[in-house]
This record gives sequence, structure tokens and C-alpha cells, in this order.
Amino acid sequence: MLSELKRRVYEANMELSERGLVVYTFGNASEIDRERGIVAIKPSGVDYSTLGPEQIVLVDLNGKRVEGELNPSSDTRTHCRLYREWEGIGGIVHTHSRYATAWAQAKRPLPCFGTTHADYFYGEVPCTEVIGDKAIERDYEEETGVQIVDAFAGIDCRHMKAVLVACHGPFVWGADAREAVYLSVMLEEVATTGFFTVLLDPESKGIKKSLLDKHYLRKHGKDAYYGQERVP
Amino acid sequence: MLSELKRRVYEANMELSERGLVVYTFGNASEIDRERGIVAIKPSGVDYSTLGPEQIVLVDLNGKRVEGELNPSSDTRTHCRLYREWEGIGGIVHTHSRYATAWAQAKRPLPCFGTTHADYFYGEVPCTEVIGDKAIERDYEEETGVQIVDAFAGIDCRHMKAVLVACHGPFVWGADAREAVYLSVMLEEVATTGFFTVLLDPESKGIKKSLLDKHYLRKHGKDAYYGQERVP
Amino acid sequence: MLSELKRRVYEANMELSERGLVVYTFGNASEIDRERGIVAIKPSGVDYSTLGPEQIVLVDLNGKRVEGELNPSSDTRTHCRLYREWEGIGGIVHTHSRYATAWAQAKRPLPCFGTTHADYFYGEVPCTEVIGDKAIERDYEEETGVQIVDAFAGIDCRHMKAVLVACHGPFVWGADAREAVYLSVMLEEVATTGFFTVLLDPESKGIKKSLLDKHYLRKHGKDAYYGQERVP
Amino acid sequence: MLSELKRRVYEANMELSERGLVVYTFGNASEIDRERGIVAIKPSGVDYSTLGPEQIVLVDLNGKRVEGELNPSSDTRTHCRLYREWEGIGGIVHTHSRYATAWAQAKRPLPCFGTTHADYFYGEVPCTEVIGDKAIERDYEEETGVQIVDAFAGIDCRHMKAVLVACHGPFVWGADAREAVYLSVMLEEVATTGFFTVLLDPESKGIKKSLLDKHYLRKHGKDAYYGQERVP
Repeated sequence: MLSELKRRVYEANMELSERGLVVYTFGNASEIDRERGIVAIKPSGVDYSTLGPEQIVLVDLNGKRVEGELNPSSDTRTHCRLYREWEGIGGIVHTHSRYATAWAQAKRPLPCFGTTHADYFYGEVPCTEVIGDKAIERDYEEETGVQIVDAFAGIDCRHMKAVLVACHGPFVWGADAREAVYLSVMLEEVATTGFFTVLLDPESKGIKKSLLDKHYLRKHGKDAYYGQERVP
Repeated sequence: MLSELKRRVYEANMELSERGLVVYTFGNASEIDRERGIVAIKPSGVDYSTLGPEQIVLVDLNGKRVEGELNPSSDTRTHCRLYREWEGIGGIVHTHSRYATAWAQAKRPLPCFGTTHADYFYGEVPCTEVIGDKAIERDYEEETGVQIVDAFAGIDCRHMKAVLVACHGPFVWGADAREAVYLSVMLEEVATTGFFTVLLDPESKGIKKSLLDKHYLRKHGKDAYYGQERVP
Repeated sequence: MLSELKRRVYEANMELSERGLVVYTFGNASEIDRERGIVAIKPSGVDYSTLGPEQIVLVDLNGKRVEGELNPSSDTRTHCRLYREWEGIGGIVHTHSRYATAWAQAKRPLPCFGTTHADYFYGEVPCTEVIGDKAIERDYEEETGVQIVDAFAGIDCRHMKAVLVACHGPFVWGADAREAVYLSVMLEEVATTGFFTVLLDPESKGIKKSLLDKHYLRKHGKDAYYGQERVP
Repeated sequence: MLSELKRRVYEANMELSERGLVVYTFGNASEIDRERGIVAIKPSGVDYSTLGPEQIVLVDLNGKRVEGELNPSSDTRTHCRLYREWEGIGGIVHTHSRYATAWAQAKRPLPCFGTTHADYFYGEVPCTEVIGDKAIERDYEEETGVQIVDAFAGIDCRHMKAVLVACHGPFVWGADAREAVYLSVMLEEVATTGFFTVLLDPESKGIKKSLLDKHYLRKHGKDAYYGQERVP
């Protein structure tokens, strides 16, 4: 069932490994078939070197397995919560990539320090609150999704496709798993240069609104002119 | 004798090299056959590029060579001391991996700054005292083992499988050499992100107990649900 | 048309990718045919893994495409402005290489901290002002070129072949695209060691004039004696 | 002439490149034939990718070329000065490796922060004074050698085989070019972890004498017991 979806999710997970964003079994990518309400996701604790498309697990929107022999990623219910909350998104990636994780561990949102950031993320990447004790007890993975949604009050998830979960690491999303992987690489890139930037200038506040708008909108606005084609 | 044990120890040592945790002849992995009281360990000062399983040295629990033409690792008696003190462990790795070594050189225990750390190490990774002058004179390698054991007063070596030896570097252990290598990679990973974290937030204290418990115990507790199988 | 020029520009772009200065579609290299007033430049938003010499776009000195099916790099008009302002230069490279970008994001010029720097860049690498709101509105890419030229008041672009565009990243130039790539690698190298240097000594001011002169001029002065041949 | 010597020097230079200590044409390794008073050294400004053993240049102890078509490294006279001053040394390496260069640019000697350092370098790696203006004018490369020798007043070059030349970078030596390369890799390793260490603990002073002695002497003392063989 849904072998194309599983192949795409497999390839997205492999690219996470090839790009150096994960070690051993860390990290997971998923993608949703919105019509059927089925999510394909990496199995839990399986090494990338032995992963194949046939091992990708299918779950429903509540995280219940509907196909596959292996347990889905332990973060599955976080993915599902985000798919239920945000209908516009089609793929999600979670990694513990080093610099993004450091910002999350320091509980600091990542300011937009330059145009590289502005090209992909429309402003400061939010950082969630530390999850509460009751939420941990209740349903940790589900509640991690709630924390993320809470952090997006007043923020449009179509223009800010990443979040830092405090004391944990980044979640990134997009139209499909492939875009979520791409933006995960970019987030790590700007988390890296952002880290260097605050060491060079601890007072740095990030770029001004006019420059942020220029860069983000020349790529993603309705009059975008970056790249080769645009479907507004 | 014990060719399977030697092969496993050989492979563990090679993975240290492939994962970038060692340069030239640094680092060593060992594993014990508890029934026979025999430890297999890397020979001293042999380059990884020329190492073979047949060169792995066998020693007894006092570090005396019982098979092999080469001298065992100069750290052999530290390994042996830990095997004698802690019956539950089956493999030990020592490296000078960069970030873990930096924490050890700064004589700072490594706080648990996030869930990546909590997934593998149940709390702060301890740092030993600097070894005393008399201990150095008496029997340096043996006494390094004593320092490690002293640092674990009140700490269960089954849930904290790593230590930073002050002014030296990390020792890591597990059920076998393979697990000790795996956890050495993880320790370097969390030592790296932990380093970045304290530069972003010098006051950072590490995560709260409830989040530490959740992550560590969902992987290692009796009701663990991470991964594909559990043998409680 | 100009297939040799396109091949050289293709190779320069590929070397940026191979040297790790760019990820995905970031970065662009161009070279000019001064006789014809034609600039060859990377197309916008095309991945390095699928790039070929035949996709290199030709534009006139105002950035108008004269050959090629693809849109030229979105930074094309910045390149063209520099070619028009500085007749002596033949190739330009723009990257978001990590350490140079961090200095640009911190809006700090890069001091000459050592002889590696002095071997290639004759003094502090300037950092532009942050571009004004009106300039952004008027013609962002063209005005980025203006910012660069403004930052070079009193500085000779033949002896300082790099600039940090504030909140953005480096532009580097040379006799041809190949030299611009070479100097981009060197800039990233000295931006890296310069970053480490200011962390080790925040008060560091850079080397004295006599040492700067010695190193720069033994390579680039009229009595240069470094390397194998000199065409003064 | 001396084809074995040239091959060894070629291989030493190539290993500098393979180990990531140099980029493009940076860095140079040499070795001396003490009987004939001939030094083999890398040619100046030749890329490692096109270097061959036949291009290694032979010079006398004053740096005058006695065989080879290419100019010797611009640092040749620094090498020769050290060979003349210190009869015990047989090979020299100069690189601009990143972390060692950062310490040199910060004009800070590198303290011995741990046992990795103590295994190879017997104490703090000295940093020279910044070269004087008259010395630059007189004979820059020769005088760089003088600076190094001056920094070794009271230090035995047989037990401290590295120096940081202020505002420049490291020089490292040994019994032959191969050992000088090996120690250059080690210096970069301890310069790296030392850099991390001072960021974690700016007050860190380095290890105590008893621990330094233990580690250095178990490898290099007359009763050394590290490794497989000893020729005292």
C-alpha cells in the first residue's frame, strides 16, 4: 500500500543521514497522504544502514499502525498532532542536528541574523516552552506537538516552517518530506552561522524587517523572482 | 583462543577509528569473557590501518598477558580494575575524542542539557578528581581505575555508563565492546552540543528530573517502548 | 557562444561546491569577457549536482540575458555593477560560506590577524554598511553593488579582493573566476582562524604594518619572490 | 641524487594534505641528510595535487638550491636556520593548521591541558615574540628561525618539538619528516581540544608537573613502556 509514499519517506530519511544531520538511529522523517489520512514514517530505532523502503511504517492520524511489522518512530504522535493541527503541511522532519539542538538546549529562539536565514525562514525561529510535568505524564509525545502549536500563537506555519523544542531539538515541515529535509539542512546551516554570530557579537539582534521582507518575499512572495519557475 | 571475542574487539576498535573518535594509535576498546576471566584488548601503540583481529591481546583480570605477541594497551590495568569492580559490565572504551576530552580537561562534569543526552546517560556525566601524586607514583593506570570508581559513589554504573577522567579523557562501558563504542559516539555527540549550549547560555543547568526520567526510562526502564524489542 | 568562458564559469561553480563553501543552490561564480562586455554566470536556484556548462547563462553588463534558457543568478546585477565599477576585475564569487558569513552577520570587518591573511588580502577585509531601506526598495541587487563600492572608498580593489556585505555574506573577485574561487577559499580559511583568534584574545588588533607589507608584497609586490614565476 | 630522501619528503608533504592540515599550496615539510648537509624541501607555491617526488628541491644548509628546477619553499631559510642551530633534528614541518594558527595569532603559548598533550609535548608549547621591524627588513625568513631559537632559551628542543610563531603559525620538528608530520597532526589535535578547554574554563592553567612527567616519560623516558619497542 502506498509504495510511492513509502519510497519518498525512505529517501528523505536517507538524505538526513547522508547530509550528516543524524547519527545511528536518531531523527525521523514522515509524509502524509491527505486523502487517505495515512502517514508514512520511519520505524523506531532502526539504523539507517539497514533501512529499506519496505520498512517504512504506515499509521493513521492518531498514530495507530495500519501497515508494517515494525514499531513506528517514538515521535510518531508528535508528527500526527502537527498533521492534525496544520492542514497545510505534508511532511515533517525531526533531528538532533548539532547547532539547532544547541539553540534548543539553551532555550533560545534563533534570530534571523542574515539573508541566508531570511531566504528560508520568515523571521526568528521560535523556541517552545519547556514541557510541563503534567504534560510529560499525560502523553509526552502528543503533548510535544501541543507545545509546538502553542509556540506558534500569532505565527503562520506556512512561512515559519521550523521550531526548536526546548531541551530537545528541531522539528521542521514543508509541503512534503523532501522539503522538510531541505529546510532541516538549511536550519542547521543558519543555526551554525547564527552561533558564530552571537559569539562575535553577543548583542546582535538580527536583521531589520525591510531586509527580511526583501529576501523572504523575493523567493516566497507572490512576485517572487528567485529560481527558475514560480507557481504563485 | 577466543577468536570470536578477539574479532569483536577488533571490530569495536576499528569503528572508533571510522567514526573519527581517534587519530593514529589513540584509543582502545576491550571486552571480557566473564566465564574465563579473560579480557581482549587492543595492543599498545599500533596504528588502526595495520591492526588485525589476530593482534588483539588477551590478558587476565590483573592485566597479565595470557596470549598475543604484542604488549597490551598501556591503559589495560585501568580496564581490568573496572572489570573487577563492576561485575555487570562487559566492554570498555577509552578515547581522546575532542569535545569529551575538552570537558575532562576543564574538569567539568557534563550536565544533561537535553533529551539526546537523557536518551543514553541518566543524568550528569561525572568527572573524576585529578589523580593524586602518590597514586601516580604507586601505579598510575590501576589508580586511574580507582579514581573512576571513587567518582561513582552513589551512582549506578548500569545507568551512567561514562565518566570523564580529569585532565585526561572519557572512559565508556556497556554490555559489550560494541555498546561501549556506541555510547562513546553518543558521549562525543552530547559533549559537542553541550559545549555549544554553555557558550549560548553560560548559566544553563541542564534539564529537569521529570524530562530526564521520561527520556531515559522510555528507552531503558522496565516499561520501555522505544525501538523494536525489549528484553526487560 | 563563448563556450570556453562558460566552461570556466561552470568549473569555478563546481569547485565552490567541492570545497564545501556552498550547500544546495547557494553561491554563484561569474566571469567577464571584457572585449564583448558579456558576463557568464550560474543560473538561479539550480542544484550543483545537475549543473552543466551549457546551463551557464550569458548576460550583458546590465544583467540582461543574451543567451541561455534559464534565469541568471538573482545576484547577477550585483556582479554586473562591480564589473562596471572596477574595470580591472575579471571574475566574481559570492558564497554564504560559514565563517565569513558570521563576520558579515556580526557586521564586523575581518582584521588581518596573521600571515596567512597577509599572504592574500592586504589588510582588514572591509564590511559594508547595512543597506538602506530606500536602496532595498529601489533595486536591491544593484544597490548591493553600490554598498560594496562605497565600502571601498580609499581602498584599492586590486589589493583587497574581498568584502563582507553586512547581514549577508562575502563577495570575492580576481583576474578570473578561478582566482575568485581560490580567494573565496582563502577568505573562509582566515575568517575561520580569525574567529578562533578573537575567542582566544578578544582584544586582538591584528598584525603590524611591517609584517603585513612583508607577506603581502613578497607574493604580490613588484619584487615578489614567492612561488615559481612572476609576471610583474 | 638522494631519491630516497626526496621520496620521503614528498610523502610527508602529501600526508599534510591528506590529514587536512593544509589547503592549496600552504605548508611545507623538509628532511635533512646530515652527512652531506643537504636539505630536501617542497617547492614554493606548488599545489599538492600536482606534486611529485621529482619536484622536491635540494638545498644546502644556507638554503642555496643544489638540485631541482623549481624554487624551494619561501620558508626554506627558516628550516635551514633550525637545522644549523639544532643538530639533533632531522625533519621540519610548517603548516597553517587552523587551531594551532589561532593560538599563534593570539600570541598565546599553548598550555598542557591534558594527557594527550603530555604524551607528545613536554609542557607548554612556546610562542615566539612578534618579529621586530629590523629583523623583517634584514632577512625575514632567516630571522624567523632566530625568533624560534630565542623562544627556546632554557627549553630542550628534543622534548619540545613544536613552536608557535606569533602572528604566523606552527613549526614542528622531529627525527625525520615523518615524525614532524605526525607531531604536526598531534599539535593540531591538542590545539583544538585546548581551544575548547579555555572556552569551558578561561582560568584553566594546565596539568600539574607529576601528571605531565608520568605521561611524557612513560612514552619518551628511559624506562618508557608505551607501545611495542623501545630503543633508549
